[in-house]
Amino acid sequence: MRWWGWGDSAHAQPLPEHALALLREQLGIDGARHPPVELDRVTLAAPALDPLVRRRLAAIVGGEGVRDDHAARVLHAAGKGYPDLVRLRAGRPEGAPDAVVYPSSHAQVRAVLDECAGAGVAVVPWGGGTSVVGGVAPVRGSLRSVVALDLRKLGRVLGVDEVSSTVTVQTGMRGPALEAALRAQGLTLGHYPQSFEYVSIGGCVATRSAGQASTGHGRLDELVLGLRCAAPAGDLSLPPLPASAAGPDLRELLVGSEGTLGVLTDVSLRVRPRPGHEQYEGMFFRSFSEGSEALRAAAQHEVLPDVARLSDEEETGMSVVLAGGEGLRARAGQAYLRARGYADGCLAIFGWDGEADEVDRRRAASLAVLRERGGLSVGSGPGRSWAASRFQAPYLRDELLDHRVMVETLETASQWSRLAGLYEAVAGALREALARRQTPPLVMCHISHVYETGASLYFTFLARQEEGREIEQWRAAKTAATDAIVAAGGTITHHHAVGRDHAPWLRDEIGELGISALRALKRELDPAGIMNPGKLLPG
Amino acid sequence: MRWWGWGDSAHAQPLPEHALALLREQLGIDGARHPPVELDRVTLAAPALDPLVRRRLAAIVGGEGVRDDHAARVLHAAGKGYPDLVRLRAGRPEGAPDAVVYPSSHAQVRAVLDECAGAGVAVVPWGGGTSVVGGVAPVRGSLRSVVALDLRKLGRVLGVDEVSSTVTVQTGMRGPALEAALRAQGLTLGHYPQSFEYVSIGGCVATRSAGQASTGHGRLDELVLGLRCAAPAGDLSLPPLPASAAGPDLRELLVGSEGTLGVLTDVSLRVRPRPGHEQYEGMFFRSFSEGSEALRAAAQHEVLPDVARLSDEEETGMSVVLAGGEGLRARAGQAYLRARGYADGCLAIFGWDGEADEVDRRRAASLAVLRERGGLSVGSGPGRSWAASRFQAPYLRDELLDHRVMVETLETASQWSRLAGLYEAVAGALREALARRQTPPLVMCHISHVYETGASLYFTFLARQEEGREIEQWRAAKTAATDAIVAAGGTITHHHAVGRDHAPWLRDEIGELGISALRALKRELDPAGIMNPGKLLPG
Repeated sequence: MRWWGWGDSAHAQPLPEHALALLREQLGIDGARHPPVELDRVTLAAPALDPLVRRRLAAIVGGEGVRDDHAARVLHAAGKGYPDLVRLRAGRPEGAPDAVVYPSSHAQVRAVLDECAGAGVAVVPWGGGTSVVGGVAPVRGSLRSVVALDLRKLGRVLGVDEVSSTVTVQTGMRGPALEAALRAQGLTLGHYPQSFEYVSIGGCVATRSAGQASTGHGRLDELVLGLRCAAPAGDLSLPPLPASAAGPDLRELLVGSEGTLGVLTDVSLRVRPRPGHEQYEGMFFRSFSEGSEALRAAAQHEVLPDVARLSDEEETGMSVVLAGGEGLRARAGQAYLRARGYADGCLAIFGWDGEADEVDRRRAASLAVLRERGGLSVGSGPGRSWAASRFQAPYLRDELLDHRVMVETLETASQWSRLAGLYEAVAGALREALARRQTPPLVMCHISHVYETGASLYFTFLARQEEGREIEQWRAAKTAATDAIVAAGGTITHHHAVGRDHAPWLRDEIGELGISALRALKRELDPAGIMNPGKLLPG
Repeated sequence: MRWWGWGDSAHAQPLPEHALALLREQLGIDGARHPPVELDRVTLAAPALDPLVRRRLAAIVGGEGVRDDHAARVLHAAGKGYPDLVRLRAGRPEGAPDAVVYPSSHAQVRAVLDECAGAGVAVVPWGGGTSVVGGVAPVRGSLRSVVALDLRKLGRVLGVDEVSSTVTVQTGMRGPALEAALRAQGLTLGHYPQSFEYVSIGGCVATRSAGQASTGHGRLDELVLGLRCAAPAGDLSLPPLPASAAGPDLRELLVGSEGTLGVLTDVSLRVRPRPGHEQYEGMFFRSFSEGSEALRAAAQHEVLPDVARLSDEEETGMSVVLAGGEGLRARAGQAYLRARGYADGCLAIFGWDGEADEVDRRRAASLAVLRERGGLSVGSGPGRSWAASRFQAPYLRDELLDHRVMVETLETASQWSRLAGLYEAVAGALREALARRQTPPLVMCHISHVYETGASLYFTFLARQEEGREIEQWRAAKTAATDAIVAAGGTITHHHAVGRDHAPWLRDEIGELGISALRALKRELDPAGIMNPGKLLPG
C-alpha cells in the first residue's frame, strides 16, 4: 500500500488527457502535476513511548513485533480519507503512533491491552488502514502516548462449518485472502467494498461495512453471527447463533464499535456457495427519480438484483470520462438513447449471481419490474465494464490529487419517502458551500444499496483545491453536507462509519441519551479510555 | 382474558375423551377435573403504594387511570407461564402490583416514570401480559412498592408511510388491531406468534418475538426500524432508517430489553403488501433428522417456505390427538404412509403466501428440494388444519391444567451442526429429570424457525403434576433442560425472551463481561433501578 495514497503503483493508471481537459475547463485547475513528497521528507515528532513500556510490549509480541521506525510510523499515521492524503502528500501528517505493535494471537492482544491500560497508552486497532473517516487517526487524547495495534498477523481461518455455512476467521485477515481460502471449499463471503483488496475482515465488522453486492447478499453486519473481543476490562465471546431472544444483542454493540470498546480478534460469519454464474445488465432511466422509483418497486416486489446501482445524471455523464472511457452514454449508444428519449438519462448497473438457471429466472423477474417502470436495457457491456473497474476509484483519486483536484465521497441513507429531498439537500449544500469559496464543484451521486424501506445515496464531488487551505475547504464542504443530511433525515453514515469525521453529528442521530448510553458502555469495557480515542463519540 | 388462564371462555374446547384416555394411560393422571378457584378467593397482600404517590400518579393519568381493586391486581399479578397459572389457579399468586397505572400518551409515561423514580416505586411495563418466562412478574426488588404500567391506552397507529412500506404504531396496540388497521390499506405486518390474539406490539418488540411465518418474513426484531423509549434517565428516539453504520446499533439494545431499561412507547416497523394468496402443504419425512436435513437444504438453497415447521416423531403422533383430531398420521392416511415407508415418520407443515403466481413458483422450488431429500407430500389438509388451530394451544393448556397435567414449552436454537446433539440433550434431560421424580413425561419437539445457519427447537412436555410440589417439579425440569441447552451450545431462548425464568443462565450465553456491560447500560438509563426488577439480568 502506497503510504501517500492507494494500493500498488503497478495498478495505477494516469488520468487520460481528455479527462484532464474536461477538469481544466470545468474546475479551473492548471493541469500541472504535483506529486507527493518523498517518504524521508515526512515530518514526524519523535516517538514518545516510555522505553520500559516498549520493552514490556516487546516481551509480549517479540522484538520484531514492535516497530517505531520512520516507515512503519508513516504507514500508520493516517487512514485514506481526503484530508489524510492531503496531509500525507505534503509530508505533514497530523501525528503518528509512537510505535506499531503486531500481536499474533488473541492472548497477545489481551496482554498488550493490559499493559497499555496500566501504562496509560492509547491503542488504535489497525486492520487494513483504509478508513476514510479518520477512524484510525493516531489520537492520544489525554494519554501520554499512542500505539497502532496492527492485526495483520491475526490472519488465519480458524474453521469452516460447512454444515452450518459459517466461517470463523481472525480479524486481521484480508478480504482477498479470505475469499481465496473459501474458494477452495466452494464457498464465498461475497463481501466486496470498494476497498476490498486491502480491507481486513475485522475492520469491515467494526465499521458495519457494506459491499457492492450487499443489496442481494447483505451488509457485513447482517452476516456476523458470533465474535470474540478483547476489551481492556476483559474478554467477551458471543457464540455464532442463528438467532436468539436472550436480551439486547451485544453483537450489535460490538459490531460498529470502531475499536472504541475493544479489539475484535475473531468473528464467525455466514458464507454461501460460491456462485457459478454472474450476469450484469446496464439499463437507462429517463431521470434519477424515475430510476429510483423503479428500484423501490423492485425492492418492494422482492425482485432486487444482487448488485443494484443507479447513477444520477451528473455521474452518468462524468464518471467513465474520468476513468478513461468514452462516457457511459456514448458506450450505450448515444444515438440510440436519443431516439428513445433517454439522451439525458441515468445509467443503472444490475448484477445477479448464483446458479445459472436461478440467475436467469431472477434476472427476468427483476427486469420485468424495472422495464415496466421505464428502464431501457442497454446490454451487459456497461455492467461488465463497471465490474472490471470496481476497485479502481481510489487509484483515480490519487491521480486527481496529483493534479490538485479536491475529490471526496460521502454517503447516507434514508426512507424512500425522504430520499429525493435528501438528495437535493446534500447536493445543494455541497454546491453552495464550495461555490461560496469560489471553487464550484462537480457533484455526482448514485444509489448503491437498496432496501424495502429505503436506499443509500453515495456522493462524489470534485473541485479545484484551495492551495494552502485544502483542509479548511474540505471541512466547509463536509460540514455543509452533513448538516444537510441531518436536517433532511438521513443517517450520518450508511457504510463509511463514524470515525472522527462524523463524530460531531452522532448526537443528532441517536440523541443525548444515546450518547450517554454509549459512554456508559465504554466506561465499563474500557475504564482507562485507551481504546481508539477521539473516534465515534463526540468530544 | 381469563385471569387464571388463556383467552376467552367462549373459544375454549374441552379435552376430547380419547385424548384424556391416552393421558390417563401414559401419564397416570386420574382424569378428574380440578377447576381454578373463584376470583374472590385469590389471596393478595394489601396494596402498599404510598397514598401520596397514588394521588400524584392519578394527577398524571387521571383518576380512572390508577386502579388497585382486587380484579385489576389479580389480572396483573402474573404472566401466562406454567408456574404463573399453577399459582393463580390455586388462588396464591406470588404477589401482585400495588396498583395498575394506565397512561395514554408518551408524555404520561414520561411523567409516571419520573414520579416512580423519585418515589422508589418499581415499574413493570405491561402489554398483553402473555409472557411465559416471568417477564411481567410484579417484583419490587429492594423497592417499597411496585406498579404495573398497562399500556393498552397507547393503542393507535401513528402513521403509515406507504412509500417506504413502514408503519409507526403505539406499543400498547394489540396484534389483531394492528392487522385490522393495516388491512384497510392493503398491508400486513405478518407477525403471528402463537399468542397473537392478545399480544401487544411493544411486548413483541421488547422480547424479540418470532411468529409462525418468521422463517419467510422475518423475526419482529428484524422488522423494527425506529423506536421511541421513555427511560427514567430521559427519552431516546431512533429514526426509522433502512440501514446505518453510525456506530453500535442502539435499536438492538432496546429491542429485547424486556422493560428493564425503559418503556417503548412507539415503534416503526416494516410492513408489506397483504398477500392475496396462501397455500399450505403437508409433507412426511421418514425421521426428524431426515426432515431436518431437508429444511437445511431448503434454507441453504434459499427456497424456504414462509412457514416451515417440522414435528418430531413424538409430536407427530401426539399433538393432534390432544387437540381433538384423529392424529396427524391418521389424517395423512396411515395405510398410504405405511406403504411408502413413512409409518413412523414426521409431519412437516409448509406455507407460502404472496401473489398467486409467485406462491406457485416458490412452492414448486421449495418442494423440489424437499422431495429430493425424502419429503412425501400429503396434500394441503394437514396444513390447513394446522392454520385453523394455530392459536389454540394455550386453550389446550388450560384444559390440561384442569386435569392436573403439567404442560410446559421451552425453546432454543443453534447452528445446524449442533442441532441434532441439542435435540437429544434437551429431550434426554427432560425425560431423566421427570422420570427421577416418578412422573415420566411425554416430550415432543418441532423445528419452527429455519435459518441458513441453523434452526430453532420448540419442546412441549407433559407429565402428571406432583400435587403440592408443582413448582418444585417444574423447576427441576426447567433447570435440567436449560442446563442441557447451555451445555449443548444452544441459546437459552430463541423467542420467549429471558424474563425471570432464564435470567440465571444469561451469563452462560453472554459471559461475565456481557452481564457487566448490560448492567452499566441499565445504571445509565435507569439509575434508580425501578424498571422491571428481577428480569433479564441475573440477581
